[in-house]
Amino acid sequence: MNKTIIRRIVIVGTGRLAGHLIVSLKKAGFTIVQVVGRNHEKTQSFAEKYEIDFVTSLDLIERKADLYMLAVSDDAVVEVIEKLPELNGVCVHSSGSINLHVFENKFTSFGVFYPLQTFTEDRFIDFRKIPILIEANQPSVQKLLNSLAVSLSDMVYNVNSSDRRQLHLAAVFVSNFVNVLFSIGNDLLETTKLPFEILRPLILETVNKAFESGPEKAQTGPARRGDYKTMQMHLGLLENRPEFANIYTLLSNSIIMKFNQPKDE
Amino acid sequence: MNKTIIRRIVIVGTGRLAGHLIVSLKKAGFTIVQVVGRNHEKTQSFAEKYEIDFVTSLDLIERKADLYMLAVSDDAVVEVIEKLPELNGVCVHSSGSINLHVFENKFTSFGVFYPLQTFTEDRFIDFRKIPILIEANQPSVQKLLNSLAVSLSDMVYNVNSSDRRQLHLAAVFVSNFVNVLFSIGNDLLETTKLPFEILRPLILETVNKAFESGPEKAQTGPARRGDYKTMQMHLGLLENRPEFANIYTLLSNSIIMKFNQPKDE
Repeated sequence: MNKTIIRRIVIVGTGRLAGHLIVSLKKAGFTIVQVVGRNHEKTQSFAEKYEIDFVTSLDLIERKADLYMLAVSDDAVVEVIEKLPELNGVCVHSSGSINLHVFENKFTSFGVFYPLQTFTEDRFIDFRKIPILIEANQPSVQKLLNSLAVSLSDMVYNVNSSDRRQLHLAAVFVSNFVNVLFSIGNDLLETTKLPFEILRPLILETVNKAFESGPEKAQTGPARRGDYKTMQMHLGLLENRPEFANIYTLLSNSIIMKFNQPKDE
Repeated sequence: MNKTIIRRIVIVGTGRLAGHLIVSLKKAGFTIVQVVGRNHEKTQSFAEKYEIDFVTSLDLIERKADLYMLAVSDDAVVEVIEKLPELNGVCVHSSGSINLHVFENKFTSFGVFYPLQTFTEDRFIDFRKIPILIEANQPSVQKLLNSLAVSLSDMVYNVNSSDRRQLHLAAVFVSNFVNVLFSIGNDLLETTKLPFEILRPLILETVNKAFESGPEKAQTGPARRGDYKTMQMHLGLLENRPEFANIYTLLSNSIIMKFNQPKDE
Protein backbone atom coordinates (compact mmCIF):
# COMPACT_ATOMS: atom_id res chain seq x y z
CA MET A 1 0.00 0.00 0.00
CA ASN A 2 1.11 3.51 -0.67
CA LYS A 3 -1.06 5.62 1.57
CA THR A 4 0.65 8.84 2.45
CA ILE A 5 -2.13 10.27 4.53
CA ILE A 6 -5.05 8.98 6.57
CA ARG A 7 -8.45 10.54 6.02
CA ARG A 8 -11.15 7.89 5.87
CA ILE A 9 -11.40 5.53 8.82
CA VAL A 10 -13.50 2.44 9.54
CA ILE A 11 -14.01 1.46 13.19
CA VAL A 12 -14.68 -2.17 14.09
CA GLY A 13 -16.34 -2.41 17.49
CA THR A 14 -19.09 -0.59 19.33
CA GLY A 15 -17.72 -0.51 22.87
CA ARG A 16 -16.47 2.31 25.05
CA LEU A 17 -13.13 2.72 23.29
CA ALA A 18 -14.85 2.82 19.89
CA GLY A 19 -17.13 5.62 21.08
CA HIS A 20 -14.30 7.70 22.55
CA LEU A 21 -12.14 7.17 19.45
CA ILE A 22 -14.90 8.30 17.12
CA VAL A 23 -15.53 11.50 19.06
CA SER A 24 -11.82 12.39 19.12
CA LEU A 25 -11.14 11.42 15.52
CA LYS A 26 -14.09 13.46 14.26
CA LYS A 27 -12.99 16.44 16.30
CA ALA A 28 -9.52 16.14 14.77
CA GLY A 29 -11.03 16.28 11.27
CA PHE A 30 -11.02 12.62 10.23
CA THR A 31 -13.95 11.02 8.45
CA ILE A 32 -15.43 7.95 10.05
CA VAL A 33 -16.89 6.21 7.03
CA GLN A 34 -18.38 3.25 8.85
CA VAL A 35 -18.67 1.31 12.07
CA VAL A 36 -18.86 -2.48 12.06
CA GLY A 37 -20.61 -4.30 14.90
CA ARG A 38 -21.89 -7.78 15.57
CA ASN A 39 -25.25 -7.19 17.19
CA HIS A 40 -27.70 -5.38 14.88
CA GLU A 41 -29.63 -3.49 17.54
CA LYS A 42 -26.58 -2.38 19.49
CA THR A 43 -24.66 -1.35 16.37
CA GLN A 44 -27.60 0.60 14.98
CA SER A 45 -28.10 2.60 18.18
CA PHE A 46 -24.34 3.17 18.42
CA ALA A 47 -24.20 4.39 14.79
CA GLU A 48 -27.16 6.68 15.36
CA LYS A 49 -25.62 8.13 18.48
CA TYR A 50 -22.39 9.02 16.65
CA GLU A 51 -24.11 9.77 13.33
CA ILE A 52 -22.17 7.33 11.16
CA ASP A 53 -23.02 4.51 8.74
CA PHE A 54 -22.90 0.95 9.98
CA VAL A 55 -22.88 -2.66 8.87
CA THR A 56 -23.13 -5.79 11.00
CA SER A 57 -21.06 -8.15 8.88
CA LEU A 58 -17.32 -7.95 8.21
CA ASP A 59 -18.08 -9.09 4.63
CA LEU A 60 -19.82 -5.77 4.03
CA ILE A 61 -16.95 -3.65 5.34
CA GLU A 62 -16.11 -0.56 3.27
CA ARG A 63 -13.16 -1.48 1.03
CA LYS A 64 -11.86 1.97 0.29
CA ALA A 65 -10.89 3.31 3.70
CA ASP A 66 -7.36 4.43 4.56
CA LEU A 67 -7.40 2.92 8.05
CA TYR A 68 -9.24 0.10 9.82
CA MET A 69 -9.16 0.36 13.58
CA LEU A 70 -10.17 -2.69 15.61
CA ALA A 71 -11.61 -1.44 18.87
CA VAL A 72 -12.79 -4.82 20.12
CA SER A 73 -11.96 -6.67 23.32
CA ASP A 74 -8.60 -8.46 23.54
CA ASP A 75 -10.11 -11.90 23.18
CA ALA A 76 -11.95 -10.97 19.95
CA VAL A 77 -9.02 -9.45 17.99
CA VAL A 78 -7.73 -12.64 16.38
CA GLU A 79 -11.20 -13.81 15.37
CA VAL A 80 -12.02 -10.44 13.77
CA ILE A 81 -8.77 -10.47 11.79
CA GLU A 82 -9.54 -13.96 10.51
CA LYS A 83 -12.96 -12.87 9.30
CA LEU A 84 -11.81 -9.68 7.58
CA PRO A 85 -11.74 -9.71 3.77
CA GLU A 86 -8.67 -8.52 1.89
CA LEU A 87 -8.23 -4.79 2.42
CA ASN A 88 -5.97 -2.13 0.98
CA GLY A 89 -5.78 0.22 3.90
CA VAL A 90 -3.73 0.03 7.06
CA CYS A 91 -5.18 -2.22 9.76
CA VAL A 92 -4.50 -1.67 13.47
CA HIS A 93 -5.68 -3.17 16.72
CA SER A 94 -5.88 -1.25 19.96
CA SER A 95 -5.00 -3.89 22.47
CA GLY A 96 -2.25 -3.70 25.07
CA SER A 97 -1.75 -7.40 25.43
CA ILE A 98 -1.84 -8.59 21.81
CA ASN A 99 1.23 -8.93 19.63
CA LEU A 100 1.66 -7.07 16.35
CA HIS A 101 2.24 -10.34 14.51
CA VAL A 102 -1.45 -11.34 14.65
CA PHE A 103 -1.82 -9.39 11.38
CA GLU A 104 0.94 -11.28 9.52
CA ASN A 105 -0.04 -13.52 6.61
CA LYS A 106 -3.21 -11.52 6.15
CA PHE A 107 -2.17 -7.86 5.78
CA THR A 108 0.78 -6.00 4.33
CA SER A 109 0.36 -2.74 6.24
CA PHE A 110 -0.54 -3.03 9.87
CA GLY A 111 0.16 -1.78 13.31
CA VAL A 112 -1.02 -1.16 16.83
CA PHE A 113 -2.66 1.96 18.20
CA TYR A 114 -3.03 1.45 21.95
CA PRO A 115 -4.46 4.25 24.09
CA LEU A 116 -3.42 3.62 27.69
CA GLN A 117 -6.58 4.59 29.52
CA THR A 118 -9.73 3.17 31.04
CA PHE A 119 -12.82 4.25 29.13
CA THR A 120 -16.31 4.73 30.49
CA GLU A 121 -19.40 5.28 28.41
CA ASP A 122 -20.58 8.89 28.34
CA ARG A 123 -17.79 10.07 30.59
CA PHE A 124 -15.76 12.78 28.90
CA ILE A 125 -12.06 12.20 28.73
CA ASP A 126 -9.47 14.46 27.18
CA PHE A 127 -7.72 12.36 24.54
CA ARG A 128 -4.83 14.83 24.42
CA LYS A 129 -3.78 13.58 27.85
CA ILE A 130 -3.97 9.89 27.01
CA PRO A 131 -0.64 8.18 26.24
CA ILE A 132 -0.93 6.49 22.84
CA LEU A 133 1.44 3.61 22.09
CA ILE A 134 2.25 2.98 18.45
CA GLU A 135 3.80 0.03 16.66
CA ALA A 136 3.91 -0.77 12.96
CA ASN A 137 5.28 -3.40 10.58
CA GLN A 138 7.10 -0.87 8.40
CA PRO A 139 8.43 2.70 8.67
CA SER A 140 5.85 4.22 6.32
CA VAL A 141 3.00 2.84 8.44
CA GLN A 142 4.78 3.93 11.59
CA LYS A 143 4.89 7.45 10.18
CA LEU A 144 1.20 7.41 9.28
CA LEU A 145 0.16 6.15 12.71
CA ASN A 146 2.41 8.62 14.44
CA SER A 147 0.89 11.56 12.64
CA LEU A 148 -2.59 10.24 13.46
CA ALA A 149 -1.69 9.78 17.13
CA VAL A 150 -0.06 13.20 17.41
CA SER A 151 -3.21 14.82 16.06
CA LEU A 152 -5.15 13.26 18.95
CA SER A 153 -2.75 13.21 21.90
CA ASP A 154 0.22 15.04 23.37
CA MET A 155 1.80 11.79 24.58
CA VAL A 156 2.78 9.44 21.78
CA TYR A 157 5.25 6.59 22.30
CA ASN A 158 6.73 4.07 19.89
CA VAL A 159 6.72 0.79 21.77
CA ASN A 160 7.23 -2.80 20.60
CA SER A 161 4.82 -5.64 21.39
CA SER A 162 6.84 -7.06 24.26
CA ASP A 163 7.15 -3.73 26.08
CA ARG A 164 3.51 -2.90 25.40
CA ARG A 165 2.45 -6.19 26.94
CA GLN A 166 4.57 -5.47 30.00
CA LEU A 167 3.01 -2.01 30.27
CA HIS A 168 -0.46 -3.52 29.96
CA LEU A 169 0.36 -5.83 32.86
CA ALA A 170 1.58 -2.85 34.92
CA ALA A 171 -1.69 -1.09 34.06
CA VAL A 172 -3.70 -4.00 35.46
CA PHE A 173 -1.89 -3.58 38.78
CA VAL A 174 -2.17 0.22 39.04
CA SER A 175 -5.72 0.48 37.70
CA ASN A 176 -7.84 -2.70 37.88
CA PHE A 177 -6.24 -3.93 41.11
CA VAL A 178 -6.11 -0.47 42.68
CA ASN A 179 -9.83 -0.31 42.07
CA VAL A 180 -10.26 -3.59 43.96
CA LEU A 181 -8.62 -1.92 46.96
CA PHE A 182 -10.96 1.06 46.56
CA SER A 183 -13.88 -1.38 46.63
CA ILE A 184 -12.59 -2.93 49.84
CA GLY A 185 -12.14 0.52 51.40
CA ASN A 186 -15.68 1.37 50.41
CA ASP A 187 -17.01 -1.90 51.86
CA LEU A 188 -15.15 -1.34 55.13
CA LEU A 189 -16.78 2.07 55.56
CA GLU A 190 -20.27 0.63 55.24
CA THR A 191 -20.83 0.00 58.96
CA THR A 192 -19.50 3.46 59.88
CA LYS A 193 -21.84 5.37 57.58
CA LEU A 194 -18.92 7.62 56.70
CA PRO A 195 -18.96 8.54 52.98
CA PHE A 196 -16.40 6.96 50.64
CA GLU A 197 -15.61 10.55 49.66
CA ILE A 198 -13.78 10.99 53.00
CA LEU A 199 -10.95 8.87 51.54
CA ARG A 200 -10.51 11.00 48.42
CA PRO A 201 -7.93 13.53 49.70
CA LEU A 202 -5.81 10.68 51.07
CA ILE A 203 -5.97 8.80 47.79
CA LEU A 204 -5.10 11.84 45.69
CA GLU A 205 -2.14 12.62 47.93
CA THR A 206 -1.03 8.98 47.71
CA VAL A 207 -1.00 9.28 43.91
CA ASN A 208 0.78 12.63 43.87
CA LYS A 209 3.39 11.46 46.34
CA ALA A 210 4.10 8.29 44.39
CA PHE A 211 4.76 10.31 41.25
CA GLU A 212 6.77 12.99 43.01
CA SER A 213 9.15 10.84 45.01
CA GLY A 214 8.63 7.42 43.41
CA PRO A 215 6.39 4.77 45.01
CA GLU A 216 9.21 3.11 46.94
CA LYS A 217 10.15 6.23 48.90
CA ALA A 218 6.46 7.08 49.33
CA GLN A 219 5.59 3.85 51.19
CA THR A 220 4.13 4.40 54.67
CA GLY A 221 1.81 2.49 57.01
CA PRO A 222 1.90 -0.14 59.77
CA ALA A 223 3.77 -2.72 57.66
CA ARG A 224 6.36 -0.16 56.61
CA ARG A 225 6.94 0.78 60.28
CA GLY A 226 6.98 -2.87 61.33
CA ASP A 227 4.06 -2.07 63.66
CA TYR A 228 2.87 -5.64 64.26
CA LYS A 229 0.47 -4.61 67.00
CA THR A 230 -1.61 -2.49 64.64
CA MET A 231 -1.46 -5.15 61.92
CA GLN A 232 -2.69 -7.75 64.40
CA MET A 233 -5.53 -5.46 65.41
CA HIS A 234 -6.47 -4.90 61.75
CA LEU A 235 -6.56 -8.64 61.10
CA GLY A 236 -8.84 -8.94 64.11
CA LEU A 237 -11.23 -6.44 62.51
CA LEU A 238 -11.20 -8.56 59.35
CA GLU A 239 -12.06 -11.79 61.16
CA ASN A 240 -15.35 -12.08 59.31
CA ARG A 241 -13.90 -11.01 55.96
CA PRO A 242 -11.33 -13.73 55.27
CA GLU A 243 -10.91 -12.59 51.64
CA PHE A 244 -9.94 -9.11 52.82
CA ALA A 245 -7.69 -10.58 55.53
CA ASN A 246 -5.82 -12.59 52.88
CA ILE A 247 -5.22 -9.49 50.80
CA TYR A 248 -4.17 -7.57 53.93
CA THR A 249 -1.64 -10.25 54.85
CA LEU A 250 -0.20 -10.68 51.38
CA LEU A 251 0.28 -6.96 50.73
CA SER A 252 1.63 -6.30 54.24
CA ASN A 253 4.11 -9.13 53.81
CA SER A 254 5.22 -7.70 50.51
CA ILE A 255 6.01 -4.39 52.27
CA ILE A 256 7.72 -6.16 55.17
CA MET A 257 9.86 -8.25 52.79
CA LYS A 258 10.91 -5.13 50.96
CA PHE A 259 11.60 -2.75 53.82
CA ASN A 260 11.89 -4.47 57.18
CA GLN A 261 14.65 -6.86 56.34
CA PRO A 262 18.14 -7.00 57.92
CA LYS A 263 19.25 -3.42 57.40
CA ASP A 264 16.07 -1.85 58.85
CA GLU A 265 16.32 1.65 60.41
CA MET B 1 -11.06 21.75 83.56
CA ASN B 2 -12.97 24.76 82.40
CA LYS B 3 -11.18 25.87 79.26
CA THR B 4 -13.50 27.73 76.99
CA ILE B 5 -10.99 28.46 74.29
CA ILE B 6 -7.74 26.98 73.02
CA ARG B 7 -4.81 29.32 72.50
CA ARG B 8 -1.62 27.79 73.81
CA ILE B 9 -0.68 24.39 72.44
CA VAL B 10 2.09 21.90 73.27
CA ILE B 11 3.02 19.36 70.59
CA VAL B 12 4.52 16.01 71.61
CA GLY B 13 6.40 14.46 68.71
CA THR B 14 8.80 15.65 66.02
CA GLY B 15 7.64 13.62 63.03
CA ARG B 16 5.95 14.59 59.80
CA LEU B 17 2.49 15.08 61.31
CA ALA B 18 3.94 17.27 64.08
CA GLY B 19 5.61 19.52 61.50
CA HIS B 20 2.50 19.88 59.37
CA LEU B 21 0.31 20.52 62.42
CA ILE B 22 2.61 23.27 63.71
CA VAL B 23 2.63 25.08 60.37
CA SER B 24 -1.17 24.98 60.09
CA LEU B 25 -1.83 25.84 63.72
CA LYS B 26 0.52 28.83 63.60
CA LYS B 27 -1.09 30.03 60.40
CA ALA B 28 -4.50 29.81 62.07
CA GLY B 29 -3.27 32.01 64.92
CA PHE B 30 -2.53 29.49 67.66
CA THR B 31 0.57 29.71 69.83
CA ILE B 32 2.80 26.65 69.91
CA VAL B 33 4.41 27.05 73.30
CA GLN B 34 6.62 23.99 73.14
CA VAL B 35 7.52 20.82 71.34
CA VAL B 36 8.54 17.70 73.27
CA GLY B 37 10.82 15.14 71.63
CA ARG B 38 12.87 12.16 72.73
CA ASN B 39 16.09 12.58 70.85
CA HIS B 40 17.93 15.80 71.76
CA GLU B 41 19.57 16.45 68.40
CA LYS B 42 16.48 15.72 66.34
CA THR B 43 14.20 17.73 68.62
CA GLN B 44 16.55 20.69 68.64
CA SER B 45 16.78 20.87 64.86
CA PHE B 46 13.02 20.40 64.59
CA ALA B 47 12.39 23.21 67.12
CA GLU B 48 14.80 25.50 65.28
CA LYS B 49 13.17 24.79 61.95
CA TYR B 50 9.72 25.74 63.27
CA GLU B 51 11.03 28.43 65.66
CA ILE B 52 9.54 27.07 68.86
CA ASP B 53 10.83 26.12 72.31
CA PHE B 54 11.59 22.51 73.06
CA VAL B 55 12.31 20.03 75.85
CA THR B 56 13.36 16.41 75.57
CA SER B 57 11.74 15.06 78.71
CA LEU B 58 8.04 14.74 79.44
CA ASP B 59 8.79 15.78 83.03
CA LEU B 60 9.71 19.22 81.75
CA ILE B 61 6.54 19.69 79.74
CA GLU B 62 4.91 23.14 80.01
CA ARG B 63 2.10 22.85 82.58
CA LYS B 64 0.03 25.83 81.55
CA ALA B 65 -0.98 25.02 78.01
CA ASP B 66 -4.61 24.72 76.92
CA LEU B 67 -4.06 21.72 74.68
CA TYR B 68 -1.53 18.88 74.46
CA MET B 69 -1.43 17.16 71.10
CA LEU B 70 0.34 13.83 70.84
CA ALA B 71 1.68 13.53 67.32
CA VAL B 72 3.62 10.34 67.88
CA SER B 73 3.43 7.00 66.12
CA ASP B 74 0.57 4.66 67.04
CA ASP B 75 2.76 2.30 69.00
CA ALA B 76 4.16 5.11 71.21
CA VAL B 77 0.87 6.73 72.29
CA VAL B 78 0.21 4.60 75.36
CA GLU B 79 3.78 4.90 76.61
CA VAL B 80 3.75 8.69 76.24
CA ILE B 81 0.46 8.97 78.15
CA GLU B 82 1.91 6.87 80.99
CA LYS B 83 4.92 9.15 81.25
CA LEU B 84 3.01 12.42 81.18
CA PRO B 85 2.71 14.32 84.49
CA GLU B 86 -0.64 15.58 85.68
CA LEU B 87 -1.88 18.32 83.36
CA ASN B 88 -4.75 20.77 83.41
CA GLY B 89 -5.26 21.21 79.71
CA VAL B 90 -7.04 19.00 77.23
CA CYS B 91 -4.97 16.08 75.96
CA VAL B 92 -5.54 14.51 72.52
CA HIS B 93 -3.87 11.88 70.42
CA SER B 94 -3.88 11.88 66.63
CA SER B 95 -4.01 8.21 65.87
CA GLY B 96 -6.57 6.46 63.71
CA SER B 97 -6.22 3.08 65.30
CA ILE B 98 -6.09 3.94 69.01
CA ASN B 99 -9.13 4.09 71.26
CA LEU B 100 -10.15 7.19 73.16
CA HIS B 101 -10.11 5.27 76.44
CA VAL B 102 -6.30 5.17 76.60
CA PHE B 103 -6.57 8.54 78.40
CA GLU B 104 -8.93 7.30 81.11
CA ASN B 105 -7.68 7.13 84.72
CA LYS B 106 -5.05 9.73 83.89
CA PHE B 107 -6.89 12.73 82.43
CA THR B 108 -10.25 14.35 82.92
CA SER B 109 -10.45 16.22 79.59
CA PHE B 110 -9.30 14.32 76.55
CA GLY B 111 -10.05 13.48 73.01
CA VAL B 112 -8.82 12.47 69.59
CA PHE B 113 -7.82 14.73 66.72
CA TYR B 114 -7.13 12.49 63.73
CA PRO B 115 -6.23 14.06 60.39
CA LEU B 116 -6.89 11.47 57.67
CA GLN B 117 -3.92 12.07 55.41
CA THR B 118 -0.44 10.80 54.63
CA PHE B 119 2.22 13.35 55.53
CA THR B 120 5.59 13.84 53.91
CA GLU B 121 8.35 16.03 55.25
CA ASP B 122 8.71 19.33 53.40
CA ARG B 123 5.87 18.57 51.04
CA PHE B 124 3.19 21.24 51.26
CA ILE B 125 -0.30 20.03 51.91
CA ASP B 126 -3.42 22.11 52.26
CA PHE B 127 -4.83 21.31 55.70
CA ARG B 128 -8.20 22.80 54.74
CA LYS B 129 -8.73 19.78 52.47
CA ILE B 130 -7.78 17.18 55.05
CA PRO B 131 -10.69 15.41 56.78
CA ILE B 132 -10.25 15.77 60.56
CA LEU B 133 -11.96 13.23 62.80
CA ILE B 134 -12.82 14.37 66.29
CA GLU B 135 -13.78 12.47 69.42
CA ALA B 136 -13.94 13.67 73.02
CA ASN B 137 -14.85 12.38 76.48
CA GLN B 138 -17.31 15.19 77.20
CA PRO B 139 -19.39 17.73 75.25
CA SER B 140 -17.33 20.76 76.33
CA VAL B 141 -14.12 19.16 75.03
CA GLN B 142 -15.91 18.07 71.87
CA LYS B 143 -16.87 21.70 71.32
CA LEU B 144 -13.34 22.95 71.88
CA LEU B 145 -11.83 20.39 69.50
CA ASN B 146 -14.46 21.08 66.91
CA SER B 147 -13.75 24.78 66.87
CA LEU B 148 -10.02 24.01 66.63
CA ALA B 149 -10.57 21.58 63.74
CA VAL B 150 -12.89 23.94 61.88
CA SER B 151 -10.27 26.65 62.04
CA LEU B 152 -7.86 24.32 60.21
CA SER B 153 -10.01 22.26 57.85
CA ASP B 154 -13.22 22.38 55.84
CA MET B 155 -13.95 18.71 56.54
CA VAL B 156 -14.56 17.95 60.20
CA TYR B 157 -16.31 14.78 61.34
CA ASN B 158 -17.35 13.57 64.78
CA VAL B 159 -16.50 9.88 64.83
CA ASN B 160 -16.27 7.37 67.67
CA SER B 161 -13.25 5.13 68.29
CA SER B 162 -14.72 2.07 66.67
CA ASP B 163 -15.65 3.84 63.43
CA ARG B 164 -12.33 5.68 63.37
CA ARG B 165 -10.47 2.38 63.66
CA GLN B 166 -12.51 0.98 60.78
CA LEU B 167 -11.74 4.07 58.71
CA HIS B 168 -8.06 3.73 59.50
CA LEU B 169 -8.16 0.16 58.22
CA ALA B 170 -9.87 1.33 55.03
CA ALA B 171 -7.13 3.95 54.69
CA VAL B 172 -4.45 1.25 54.83
CA PHE B 173 -6.11 -0.48 51.86
CA VAL B 174 -6.65 2.62 49.70
CA SER B 175 -3.33 4.31 50.51
CA ASN B 176 -0.55 2.02 51.82
CA PHE B 177 -1.65 -0.99 49.77
CA VAL B 178 -2.45 1.07 46.68
CA ASN B 179 1.11 2.35 46.90
CA VAL B 180 2.37 -1.26 46.91
CA LEU B 181 0.58 -1.75 43.58
CA PHE B 182 2.17 1.46 42.27
CA SER B 183 5.58 0.02 43.26
CA ILE B 184 4.85 -3.17 41.37
CA GLY B 185 3.74 -1.18 38.31
CA ASN B 186 6.95 0.82 38.51
CA ASP B 187 9.05 -2.36 38.83
CA LEU B 188 7.31 -3.96 35.85
CA LEU B 189 8.17 -0.97 33.67
CA GLU B 190 11.87 -1.24 34.47
CA THR B 191 12.77 -3.51 31.56
CA THR B 192 10.80 -1.39 29.08
CA LYS B 193 12.50 1.90 29.94
CA LEU B 194 9.10 3.55 29.74
CA PRO B 195 8.71 6.21 32.46
CA PHE B 196 6.41 5.51 35.45
CA GLU B 197 4.79 8.83 34.51
CA ILE B 198 3.13 7.11 31.54
CA LEU B 199 0.75 5.45 34.03
CA ARG B 200 -0.35 8.70 35.67
CA PRO B 201 -3.34 9.60 33.44
CA LEU B 202 -4.68 6.06 33.83
CA ILE B 203 -4.32 6.18 37.61
CA LEU B 204 -5.96 9.58 37.92
CA GLU B 205 -8.89 8.45 35.77
CA THR B 206 -9.17 5.28 37.87
CA VAL B 207 -9.49 7.45 41.00
CA ASN B 208 -11.98 9.87 39.45
CA LYS B 209 -14.10 7.06 38.06
CA ALA B 210 -14.22 5.26 41.39
CA PHE B 211 -15.50 8.38 43.11
CA GLU B 212 -17.93 9.28 40.36
CA SER B 213 -19.66 5.95 39.89
CA GLY B 214 -18.48 4.03 42.96
CA PRO B 215 -15.62 1.50 42.78
CA GLU B 216 -17.88 -1.48 42.15
CA LYS B 217 -19.36 -0.08 38.94
CA ALA B 218 -15.94 1.22 37.90
CA GLN B 219 -14.27 -2.21 37.89
CA THR B 220 -12.76 -3.20 34.53
CA GLY B 221 -9.94 -5.46 33.34
CA PRO B 222 -9.28 -9.07 32.30
CA ALA B 223 -10.66 -10.57 35.54
CA ARG B 224 -13.81 -8.47 35.29
CA ARG B 225 -14.36 -9.67 31.71
CA GLY B 226 -13.52 -13.25 32.67
CA ASP B 227 -10.72 -13.13 30.08
CA TYR B 228 -8.73 -16.15 31.28
CA LYS B 229 -6.43 -16.15 28.27
CA THR B 230 -5.04 -12.72 29.09
CA MET B 231 -4.76 -13.59 32.78
CA GLN B 232 -2.84 -16.75 31.89
CA MET B 233 -0.51 -14.72 29.68
CA HIS B 234 0.05 -12.19 32.50
CA LEU B 235 0.92 -14.97 34.95
CA GLY B 236 3.40 -16.22 32.37
CA LEU B 237 5.07 -12.81 32.33
CA LEU B 238 5.32 -12.99 36.13
CA GLU B 239 6.98 -16.40 36.18
CA ASN B 240 10.14 -14.97 37.71
CA ARG B 241 8.29 -12.71 40.14
CA PRO B 242 6.34 -15.20 42.27
CA GLU B 243 5.46 -12.51 44.83
CA PHE B 244 3.82 -10.41 42.10
CA ALA B 245 2.11 -13.50 40.66
CA ASN B 246 0.58 -14.26 44.06
CA ILE B 247 -0.82 -10.76 44.32
CA TYR B 248 -2.08 -10.97 40.72
CA THR B 249 -3.89 -14.23 41.43
CA LEU B 250 -5.41 -13.15 44.73
CA LEU B 251 -6.74 -9.83 43.43
CA SER B 252 -7.98 -11.35 40.17
CA ASN B 253 -9.79 -14.04 42.12
CA SER B 254 -11.38 -11.41 44.31
CA ILE B 255 -12.78 -9.73 41.16
CA ILE B 256 -13.89 -13.05 39.69
CA MET B 257 -15.63 -14.06 42.91
CA LYS B 258 -17.46 -10.76 42.98
CA PHE B 259 -18.50 -10.38 39.37
CA ASN B 260 -18.23 -13.59 37.39
CA GLN B 261 -20.43 -15.73 39.55
CA PRO B 262 -23.76 -17.38 38.59
CA LYS B 263 -25.77 -14.32 37.63
CA ASP B 264 -23.07 -12.86 35.39
CA GLU B 265 -24.10 -10.83 32.30
